[in-house]
This record gives sequence, structure tokens and C-alpha cells, in this order.
Amino acid sequence: MYQFADRMGQVSTSAIREIFKAMADPEIISFGGGSPANQSFPIDVIKDITEKALTEKGPQVLQYGITEGWPALRQAYVEHIAKPKGIEAAVENVIVTTGASQGIQLLADVFLNPGDVVLVESPTFLGVFSVFNKYFVKCVPVAMDEHGLIVEDLEAKIKEHNPKMLYTIPTFQNPTGRTLPVDRRQKVAELASQNNLIVLEDDPYCDLRYKGEVVPNIKMFDKTGHVVLLNSFAKIISPGLRVGTILAETEIIQKLAVAKQGADTHTANLSQEICAEFLNRGLLPGHLEKIKPMYEVRLNTMLSAIKKYFPEGTKYTEPDGGLFVWVELPGEPDVLELFKKSASDYKVAFVPGIHFCKNPEDGIRHLRLNFSSSTPEQIEEGIKRLGELFSKELAK
Amino acid sequence: MYQFADRMGQVSTSAIREIFKAMADPEIISFGGGSPANQSFPIDVIKDITEKALTEKGPQVLQYGITEGWPALRQAYVEHIAKPKGIEAAVENVIVTTGASQGIQLLADVFLNPGDVVLVESPTFLGVFSVFNKYFVKCVPVAMDEHGLIVEDLEAKIKEHNPKMLYTIPTFQNPTGRTLPVDRRQKVAELASQNNLIVLEDDPYCDLRYKGEVVPNIKMFDKTGHVVLLNSFAKIISPGLRVGTILAETEIIQKLAVAKQGADTHTANLSQEICAEFLNRGLLPGHLEKIKPMYEVRLNTMLSAIKKYFPEGTKYTEPDGGLFVWVELPGEPDVLELFKKSASDYKVAFVPGIHFCKNPEDGIRHLRLNFSSSTPEQIEEGIKRLGELFSKELAK
Repeated sequence: MYQFADRMGQVSTSAIREIFKAMADPEIISFGGGSPANQSFPIDVIKDITEKALTEKGPQVLQYGITEGWPALRQAYVEHIAKPKGIEAAVENVIVTTGASQGIQLLADVFLNPGDVVLVESPTFLGVFSVFNKYFVKCVPVAMDEHGLIVEDLEAKIKEHNPKMLYTIPTFQNPTGRTLPVDRRQKVAELASQNNLIVLEDDPYCDLRYKGEVVPNIKMFDKTGHVVLLNSFAKIISPGLRVGTILAETEIIQKLAVAKQGADTHTANLSQEICAEFLNRGLLPGHLEKIKPMYEVRLNTMLSAIKKYFPEGTKYTEPDGGLFVWVELPGEPDVLELFKKSASDYKVAFVPGIHFCKNPEDGIRHLRLNFSSSTPEQIEEGIKRLGELFSKELAK
Repeated sequence: MYQFADRMGQVSTSAIREIFKAMADPEIISFGGGSPANQSFPIDVIKDITEKALTEKGPQVLQYGITEGWPALRQAYVEHIAKPKGIEAAVENVIVTTGASQGIQLLADVFLNPGDVVLVESPTFLGVFSVFNKYFVKCVPVAMDEHGLIVEDLEAKIKEHNPKMLYTIPTFQNPTGRTLPVDRRQKVAELASQNNLIVLEDDPYCDLRYKGEVVPNIKMFDKTGHVVLLNSFAKIISPGLRVGTILAETEIIQKLAVAKQGADTHTANLSQEICAEFLNRGLLPGHLEKIKPMYEVRLNTMLSAIKKYFPEGTKYTEPDGGLFVWVELPGEPDVLELFKKSASDYKVAFVPGIHFCKNPEDGIRHLRLNFSSSTPEQIEEGIKRLGELFSKELAK
């Protein structure tokens, strides 16, 4: 009966909803999501911060706030997130978003016309397809190898398509866990400048590094204001607060503020104050040192279990951080069919690789496994069950 | 240098930013905003609720939530907001939004194609123009009299323009404070059904009634699922929490959930839990009884001061509730010029009427005054100053 907008026909989420439905089954061991561990949240500190915030500045916290963000948080982001990464920025270069997912949508709002081309890694974060599709743009995949985005293919795709934007997750990429090396980052920034290409550097996992050396942001090599850096508090404090940030030239920030005004006026003040005060108390480094060993154990447990239980010929990434392992099964597996059997008969969930790919063939033998939200015992048991299923089905 | 999207050229907020800049001056008496009183916030209860929520369900509150909303809040909205208004609804008819402003944008996302016509009251909430403009739709104004929307003009505009949507604030309208009578509400619902017209019934002020009888929602007369009801916790608990709701047929709610998934994944859980628990503790009716007398005093102070100080021939609305009084000055005033003098020389802010109007001539002699965020003393003094300015300038 209703005449919905044409853009809604561009948006497909049924496969994802299927997966979420399976994950909601309390019996299931889920490697399907991207949630931080329930055990990782600094509940007591947040209790203390909220109590203090409401006591000392209740009326400001509960009143309308500024569209660009809670001043204390913009300042704290510059001081405690950007600066330690070596990024020079002023408060005017920062806008707070309602989760980093809002950041992607606001940047689409500000930059994308129908018919524009957006380059994405293949595979990439599945949520971006439904956002970009709403803007009637064309998503063109750029190839990756084990080190991430292949810059030669990026250059070729720029020449071929004259794209408006590149969306990339250079560090502990979702879904692969891969990290782009420094020389490729430099090249990405150069290509952006030379081709008037906006780079969305989505960096929610960067602070969850369990081994290896820190790699500088693509933003560090940006001399012309073409790189826009998205950070998130979801994985390092709490996703339920819905707080992310965008760092960009002030001209872009001003447009984003106009878009955000219509989107939700501003992000919840209490959520912003929690993040600001957490940073200003100097708690982030210690908190990360506390949660990283827990995630490292989970990652190592998953990697050894895959090695032990998955069929011979299975390939998988061994990331230095983040939340995900990307698995390629041997032979000609039907991963969508395997997912159904896995969820119903083996009570284990994952996400089939094709959902992360513009060209389904790029992810047809693949699956994404999240290790952060399950205990080591669940990981051992879940991977064992998956191993049984895969060995049985692939032997057919 | 940047090639921003065409839609950003459709969005004009410079006049509004000018006004906000003036309002930020701490010396100024501001009738320009739409904020609730700082004194109205239930700080102690919110402290207690957050402490309890983090103690008893910290991991759920801080983890990712459901796109459609915190289950306790959807349930509490049905029980404590919809039901007392006589509206039958199930949890599946409700989605939680990041402020009611997100609700407007999500509905635009779901329903509007470029070229569609949206009917708006003249004058109307100024924020809707920048939202609707982004979707390349045509906003067509419908005339109002002292009782609100004129349904004969609505019918004529429907015939002339075949619109997709009507945006209306039927109760204590922004900016006029007018309330649509019951017979016109019934007619609006009928016209919507007959013409496959989606009605956005934006109702953030309905619970701030200081006198007169409650009028049923337009939604009460909706037999065909054409009316979508937006409510907000901004004016009755706290705007800083950013929590609003949309009540609609499940088919619409499902599309809204898809749009919200890309917009911000979900609304901040802690904000949602605060609203849910506030309702479930049965605190809303008592809280409203506490804040309404405070606002009534401010409204009455403003009305008497206008009568006392404004030039002869001034017309103004005398609303039964809400936050705003709409003033029409006599003669041929240049209200934009008066605003500048008022802000700089008299240190009083208001919003010129033309900003609320698609056709500027509809608001050319008008101004909107907010009475909720100033004390009675400030109101008396501010209206006195405005009276001096207006008398002086209009006598020229």
C-alpha cells in the first residue's frame, strides 16, 4: 500500500537480518558479530563519571548540546587520541558523531551525488553497501592481497572510474584483519591528493593491537586535506554509548555539522561526557593494556583451534589486532549452505564472506570469524564444531 | 576545492546560525531557542536510574543494542505514553530515534523521492526545510488561521499537488502555539486515507498543557495506517539524552529500522534506559505536574508583558501549552532589521517569523518568542526592552 522511496529498494539487509536472528539464539556460539567482550567494559569508572557529571553539571548534560559535539570531548579527542597518534589537529577539525556509522552516512550526505563512484576494498565492512546504495552511487571494488589494498589496482580504478571517494579500513581491516603497510598508506594519500579523491580512513580497531609495531595513519601523509579520519569509542570504551568522531579540514567539518543538524541535532551529551572524562582522567592507555591481553588470548585460541580442527588446505589471516579472522576454505564450498547447517545443527554462527563483497566471487569460499565476544572455552568448542561440519561437508 | 554533493547547496542554515551566535552571548536575554528550563530536569532521579542501570545491567547497557530500540523503552512507551492517550499499539509499532529530529529524517529517507511534494503548515518548524530540501522535494505551504491548519486549504493543496506527505505539529504548534481542534484532526486523517497521504504528526509538546482540555491525536482517527506519530522525551524529561519515538504500522517501522541501521545503528542505550525506567517507575505524570506550573507562570508573565509593553495593534497568540508565543507587529516592520538591533543594542534575542515560512511574506511581520527557558524576571525585563525597541522603530 505504501509508496516507499526508490532508495529503499537499493537497500538489502535481509541476509544480515537472517544472521542476526540466528545469533540471537541463546544456545548458539556466535562468531558472527563485531561486539567487544562484555567483560571489557569499565563499568565502575563509568558509574563514577556519570554520578559526578550529573551532580556537577546536570543541567548542561541534560540540556540541548552543540551539533559539533560536547566541547570537552572535542578537546579530549584532540589531546588524547589524535596527538598520541602524531596527528596535529585543532578542536575545529573534529565533529562528534552518533557512532562511527553515522560518520559514514554524514560523509555520504556531504559528498555524494547520484552516479558518483565510491571505491571500496574487496572485501569490506558490509554496512557500507546499504549506506552508499541509498545515495544511488556505484561501489567499485579494489583488490586486496595479504597486506591489504593493492595500490596499483587502486590507481587503475581511479583512472578508469574517476571516483569521488575511497572507503578504507587500513588497520585490522573488517573483515580480514589485515593492516596496510606504511608505504602503501603514503601512496594512498598521494593518489588522493593527485586525483581530488576523498579518502574515508575508518579506524575503529587501531588501538586494539596485540603485537607488532604501530603503523601511522594515512591521515599522517595527507598534505592537501583529502583524508578524513573516523575514530570510534565503540571498541575501546563501549558501543552502547554510540560515540564516534570525524577528523577533517574545517570546511568539511562545517558541512558535516549542517548535515548532522538535520540528522539528530547532536549526539547524547551523557555519552559524550563519559568518553571525555574517561580520556581526561588519563584512563584510556591503562584500560587498553587491561583488555588487550584478554583479546590476544582469544585470538590465539581461535588461530590454534582453526589450525587444529579446520580441513587441510584452509587459509586464514593471522592479524596483529582487531576483532576478526578471515578464513578461506579449500575446494568449492557452498558457504551460504554451510552457514545454514552451522546455525541450525551445530549451533555456531559466523558471517559468509560474500556479504562483504561487491563481487560475490571475491568472498565465495570465505567466512568472517569474530573472536572478541566469546570466551576461550567457547572459541575452542565453536571452532571444533565448525571443523567437524566443514570436514564432513567438504569431503562430500 | 572540495566537490560537495548538490544536496548541500539545498540546505541553508546561515540565518539560524546567526541567531544561535547571538543567543550564545551570555549577556543576552534569549527568547530565541526552544529549550526546556534548566530547572525542569529530574537530575536526582536520573542519577539514581543510571547508578542502578550500570550496577544491575552494565554489560547490556554498554554493549551494542537493537536498531528498533531498547526493548524496555519500546514497551514503556506503549504502556505509559501511547495507552494513556488512548492509542492502541504493540511494541512492533514503535521505533526509538536519536531525538525526534532523527525521526523526521528517517521518514524522509523511507518515503521521499526527488520531485515529491511535502505539505507543511505555514509557518512551521524551521528545521524541516533543511531536512526536506536535502531530498530534493518541493515544500508547499498550507494556510493556517488562529486554530491551526485550514483543512479546506489542505484539501485544495492535495488536489493541486498530489503530495506524498503532510508534516504537521497539531498541538501547541511551533512556532505559533496554536492547537488544531478535534473536528479538523478528524478531517486531516480522512483526507490522508482518501488520498494516500502520509501524515507526520509531530507531537513533542502535547504533554505541556497548562490549561484547556486535552485534544485527541490525529492518529486516533487514522483507520488506514496513514498517520505516523512522533513523540519526544526532549521537552518532558531531557533533550540532552536525544530520545524520541515513531509510532506507525509495522511495515513502516521495518523500513525505518533499515534506514536507522545505516544512520546510527541504534540510539544510545543509557539514554534509552533512563527514559524507560523513568516511565516504568510511574514518574512522568508527577514530573509533568511539577514542571507545568513553572511554565504556566512564564507564559502568563510573557503574555501580560507583551500586553503592557508592545506597541498598540500588536497581535499575539495565547497558547494553552507548549513553549512558544507568535507575535504579529502592527504596520510595516522590518523584523530582520529589528532582530539585529535587538540582539546588539538591547541584548534580547528572538527568531524572525520569516524563517518559519516557505513564503517569506507569511511571516514578514512576525516573531517567535520562547518563554520556557527564561525566568519570569528575565521575561519581564526582556519583553520590556523589546517593547521599547519596537515602539521606537515602528513610530519612525
